[in-house]
Amino acid sequence: MSLTEHAMSATLHRRMLGNLLAWLDKAEDHARDKGQDGAELLALRLAPDMLPFSQQVLIACEMARITLARLGDAEIAAFSGAVDSLAGLRSRVRAAIDMVDGIGPERLAGRSAAAVVLPQRQGEPLHFSGEGFLQQWALPNFFFHVTTAYALLRHAGVPLGKADYLGAI
Amino acid sequence: MSLTEHAMSATLHRRMLGNLLAWLDKAEDHARDKGQDGAELLALRLAPDMLPFSQQVLIACEMARITLARLGDAEIAAFSGAVDSLAGLRSRVRAAIDMVDGIGPERLAGRSAAAVVLPQRQGEPLHFSGEGFLQQWALPNFFFHVTTAYALLRHAGVPLGKADYLGAI
Repeated sequence: MSLTEHAMSATLHRRMLGNLLAWLDKAEDHARDKGQDGAELLALRLAPDMLPFSQQVLIACEMARITLARLGDAEIAAFSGAVDSLAGLRSRVRAAIDMVDGIGPERLAGRSAAAVVLPQRQGEPLHFSGEGFLQQWALPNFFFHVTTAYALLRHAGVPLGKADYLGAI
Repeated sequence: MSLTEHAMSATLHRRMLGNLLAWLDKAEDHARDKGQDGAELLALRLAPDMLPFSQQVLIACEMARITLARLGDAEIAAFSGAVDSLAGLRSRVRAAIDMVDGIGPERLAGRSAAAVVLPQRQGEPLHFSGEGFLQQWALPNFFFHVTTAYALLRHAGVPLGKADYLGAI
């Protein structure tokens, strides 16, 4: 038996999004201990020209949805509305989890050989095989935003550790 | 054709380690512009209880080597000796690339179904299938250290952007 598209996309994304939900819970607990509501975390950045925490979380959700939509040949509706609280971020993560959970193994089987075309805001679309898309674009981008969100919470003093990052194994 | 173990391990690790080499070059250029040699970057941390930049890079290299060794059923020798410069980090990254390049597709084919046992410093070893090992442990850990290294350089003002993170696509 070889590697399945489902394990390397849906299962992986589902796992890390679940971990991200738990980090948001811990961030809220940490804020509450300091008499805050956590909304002050949303604007944190690691560098002035990097996106803030709220965007790192929202883009991680979008990366998961886009990846499963492209690989699963599904349509996704854009999210709308601003998010200005940890509770708001949590509901976006939950929505991304629901979307990922809706793409079963049968939708993904064999899709590593399919052509994936990714429109770009500027310039020509990117062309991949499903495999190249996962390996060169989807997984690096998803982990970039998830890990940067984690790094920002650690930098802000939220008590998280490697076991929170990886989740239960 | 389904997803291959080689693409999702060796090719992916090789690509991100090559990107990491380029970040180290830019970090050295940035330090030189400020009249420094870059060694001051090695001790940077995002939180007091997180590992410094040098360790993030070294562990990213180890994660790549361990992953390919476990999946490719190969032995690896431990690295020895301290690393106290960007040049030293670069040679460890190059050594990791050489190791990854030495594990061809034929060594990895079908290994997603193999049993992977991962000894732990404390407690019982972790037991995975090759697929579970990649999805739950190897890729999250590798991206954790690579992305944290990138985040530290961005936090230190090294001029990097998403195209540096992803590499040429």
